[in-house]
Amino acid sequence: MECKQFTLGRHLLSEFYDCDPNVLNNLSLIDSVMTEAATIAGATIVQKNFHHFSPYGVSGVIVIAESHLAIHTWPEYGYAAVDLFTCGDSVDPVVAYEFMREHLHAKTAFYSELKRGLLNSDSGQLLKAPFQVGQERQNALLEGGIAR
Amino acid sequence: MECKQFTLGRHLLSEFYDCDPNVLNNLSLIDSVMTEAATIAGATIVQKNFHHFSPYGVSGVIVIAESHLAIHTWPEYGYAAVDLFTCGDSVDPVVAYEFMREHLHAKTAFYSELKRGLLNSDSGQLLKAPFQVGQERQNALLEGGIAR
Repeated sequence: MECKQFTLGRHLLSEFYDCDPNVLNNLSLIDSVMTEAATIAGATIVQKNFHHFSPYGVSGVIVIAESHLAIHTWPEYGYAAVDLFTCGDSVDPVVAYEFMREHLHAKTAFYSELKRGLLNSDSGQLLKAPFQVGQERQNALLEGGIAR
Repeated sequence: MECKQFTLGRHLLSEFYDCDPNVLNNLSLIDSVMTEAATIAGATIVQKNFHHFSPYGVSGVIVIAESHLAIHTWPEYGYAAVDLFTCGDSVDPVVAYEFMREHLHAKTAFYSELKRGLLNSDSGQLLKAPFQVGQERQNALLEGGIAR
């Protein structure tokens, strides 16, 4: 019999490529894009920190009541690594992903949804196991890439 | 010819099971354990935020000069999800993982090291590809678990 599962946390690991470097290096813009992404995804913002690093790049974290969102940018590569970790049903991290993709002007983007804290829905017990990979999405052709 | 690669970011996704629930629900203790883990791993702390949620659980994020560390705890399950995201060679996230495992009193623990922002070390070019899974570690027998 197949074991039904649900999960305490949904963690979208997102990679954004060929983004606008001027956006990626703009502290206040990254702050506002992340904040808006959190809001439209349905998250409740608890606290946020954004920092610009020398010579390039922004790191930012938003603690939300439903876990956290984080971004690290490398403008010199046009690359941003974004984590969208949520728990509960009231927040949809995919909505945040789509908003980020659009507003970072990413020509290529991926996400993998990692299921963290798997529960057996019949027994309610936590399964002691590593995360599992759920849905994955690719928003452009894989260019110069590598097989997974 | 095999393509040599290096990576902009090392992201350890850690799962800690059968932890001490009193530790997981103690805001100041989680703060001090995470802060010490960051320090002994060689990280430079930029800012940190820790919050206790009702009725149980702590969320915390430390922004470090080398990316971020994040924790979310579910004391009722004895479970903590911990992310240790670092860039550069001066910080070793595995050191932070080992420290966390010991101080959360986790009987079972896993990590997977995800390589984010892969570069071709010959050309220096960024490869437009999803993250890759590198080293994985399991620190106890898989009990009641599921195949990956």
